[in-house]
Amino acid sequence: MINETYKKMLQGKSIIRELSEYASARGQEIGYDNVFDYSLGNPSVPCPQAYTDAMAELLKTGDPMDIHGYSPSLGIESVRKAVADSLNQRFGMDYEAKHIFMASGAAGALAHAFRCVTSPGDEILTFAPYFPEYGPYVNLSGAVLRVVPASTEDFQVNFQALEQVMNEKVMAVLINTPNNPSGIVYSTETIEKLADFLETKQKEYGHDIFLISDEPYREIVFKGADSPYVSRFYDNSISCYSYSKSLSLPGERIGYVAVNPRCTDGDVLAVMCGQISRGIGHNCPPSSVQLAVSKVLGQTSDLSVYETNMNLLYDALVRLGFQVVKPGGTFYIFPKALEDSAGAFCVKAKKYDLILVPSDNFGVPGYFRMAYCIDTEKVKRSIPVLERFVKEEYPDR
Amino acid sequence: MINETYKKMLQGKSIIRELSEYASARGQEIGYDNVFDYSLGNPSVPCPQAYTDAMAELLKTGDPMDIHGYSPSLGIESVRKAVADSLNQRFGMDYEAKHIFMASGAAGALAHAFRCVTSPGDEILTFAPYFPEYGPYVNLSGAVLRVVPASTEDFQVNFQALEQVMNEKVMAVLINTPNNPSGIVYSTETIEKLADFLETKQKEYGHDIFLISDEPYREIVFKGADSPYVSRFYDNSISCYSYSKSLSLPGERIGYVAVNPRCTDGDVLAVMCGQISRGIGHNCPPSSVQLAVSKVLGQTSDLSVYETNMNLLYDALVRLGFQVVKPGGTFYIFPKALEDSAGAFCVKAKKYDLILVPSDNFGVPGYFRMAYCIDTEKVKRSIPVLERFVKEEYPDR
Repeated sequence: MINETYKKMLQGKSIIRELSEYASARGQEIGYDNVFDYSLGNPSVPCPQAYTDAMAELLKTGDPMDIHGYSPSLGIESVRKAVADSLNQRFGMDYEAKHIFMASGAAGALAHAFRCVTSPGDEILTFAPYFPEYGPYVNLSGAVLRVVPASTEDFQVNFQALEQVMNEKVMAVLINTPNNPSGIVYSTETIEKLADFLETKQKEYGHDIFLISDEPYREIVFKGADSPYVSRFYDNSISCYSYSKSLSLPGERIGYVAVNPRCTDGDVLAVMCGQISRGIGHNCPPSSVQLAVSKVLGQTSDLSVYETNMNLLYDALVRLGFQVVKPGGTFYIFPKALEDSAGAFCVKAKKYDLILVPSDNFGVPGYFRMAYCIDTEKVKRSIPVLERFVKEEYPDR
Repeated sequence: MINETYKKMLQGKSIIRELSEYASARGQEIGYDNVFDYSLGNPSVPCPQAYTDAMAELLKTGDPMDIHGYSPSLGIESVRKAVADSLNQRFGMDYEAKHIFMASGAAGALAHAFRCVTSPGDEILTFAPYFPEYGPYVNLSGAVLRVVPASTEDFQVNFQALEQVMNEKVMAVLINTPNNPSGIVYSTETIEKLADFLETKQKEYGHDIFLISDEPYREIVFKGADSPYVSRFYDNSISCYSYSKSLSLPGERIGYVAVNPRCTDGDVLAVMCGQISRGIGHNCPPSSVQLAVSKVLGQTSDLSVYETNMNLLYDALVRLGFQVVKPGGTFYIFPKALEDSAGAFCVKAKKYDLILVPSDNFGVPGYFRMAYCIDTEKVKRSIPVLERFVKEEYPDR
């Protein structure tokens, strides 16, 4: 009979998707140029020409039996080796091919990582504000997501709250830095303190606690931000990466799991991912995309637009009196709303064709997210509109 | 802590993979041309030039933001529509885009289909001989795989055995026609009888029983074979397809779920697949591959080599006194071994560099599988070797 769990999920609505659909519909009415659509976190710059060239070259000169042939379930060996080498060179790690599992984007990487280090009923902690999809990602794996309240003054880790939520059933802690939705990058101090905390708790509980680091925004870091490589600081760590943002290839579903060579069972976790894959649909990234990406490792799209947009918006928001923490990366900013209800605030903004996402689904009430992966020209045009919105709707501030 | 279920799976070995690795190693010693490697079911002909051209054209003229952008989680709407139209035209169905869910190959399609129509603990029946991966595919979804013994005289459905295994906990029946490993295509008579049986049981039990049809070999059907489109015969049916074999794109991970419009909740099952995907890693096929495949729907690789090879092998096997049912499709043949132990038979064959897969893992003892997706020239050279093997090892037959 029809599975009731999944059927019930059909009633749930994604506020982000709804707003994005509203923006498109509104665009049909008044021209999409006139809709200041800050809803979706979708790259706004194309992939590097080098990627297109690499793929075209493969098609032209490669043997179709190789390019389109089965990838081993852990990924193509030469690609895994290239990924390991690239990480070692950049971050001083000592990955080998055997520590890398190629996955269908960060979502695929997380689906495997969660199953590697938890059993049904175990808990995974994450920190507010967090990407709302972590709910279904974790809960449908059989583990249970628990959320540590935010530290709203800086959106680093709230250690006091962490101490309260932590318990023996927690087998993994999930972080996302640079962070969606706050745009904040966890500092070296934060990561060190978190690592110390987890080491202590591992000893206290007598079991491993894995740090799963979701890093799709790793390459979008702004000038001056302290952006430590998480796995350098904690042995029981797993890095989950996606090329969706760095190479603007979100539809090509390619990323990886990188298992810290020093973690418990470090030599078998990637192989376990291969076993997990048998149960969840062999969602190996396409062979041709693996091969093309391996030719452009270390390169990125021109990501500079995101920093330009951030600076424009941050300055405007501060000038307009918003309480906002300056992002260190990503293409998000997360200011405090001008009234308690983020929902009411965002509904008022819609009247000005400003499409803002209320923060409640991110696990923090009273804020809103702007995804500024849009043209800089539109960001500039949106600022006077934002100003008018604030003055008209909140005249007494 | 490390998940013990997946960790234990690491000890399990795939006999097919072991034999394939043996064949490669042996090839290093004596030249791969001299190894008659019938182990792996991997297409031996390239994808059609039209596919390569379609992809090259997309790269050249398409907007990289579209080609590589996020696909909706159910697949790109125009692609789903094109798939539905193509199926309707070929098989007289009435699919709409809303009945199609694009999936990462047949494995991905099955992972979604199982979760749609079962809850943990429910049973899924399949028929021996069967693809051994059905075990982990089903069991890791939370359902339980039960196997109906084979009808070895023709490898159609053994209805007597089916009646005995059938019970109220069975929520789905999984068939694979054309069949791996037998090469047999279920006849119209078989499908009609199976549909009647399931209709009766649905009434008796008072719940739906879904027929999940795994069809990656649908396009590899030989002259004269009766190859009915399964979903025409039973309303509660889900077709799971892959382009891996028909377009020789196994590494590109593209296929689909086609939900029979007449089945229970026919309008929501594909949408449910989108929800399921959130939990198992958003294993949507790559956007660029969806777009390129949609340009070549109805085309296939040159699949004629498989029929040529089948005829050569079938004639030789019959001449040598093997008991063998003539395949109606696929690139497999499944003869009876010349002694009770298929394992012992295949070990002896190895001495002649004939790499045959014993049948035990397919749920039938005493047979062996030959995957003849290899060069015809090598098939021809293998026949005198097969003859020598039989004469020397089984002289009294």
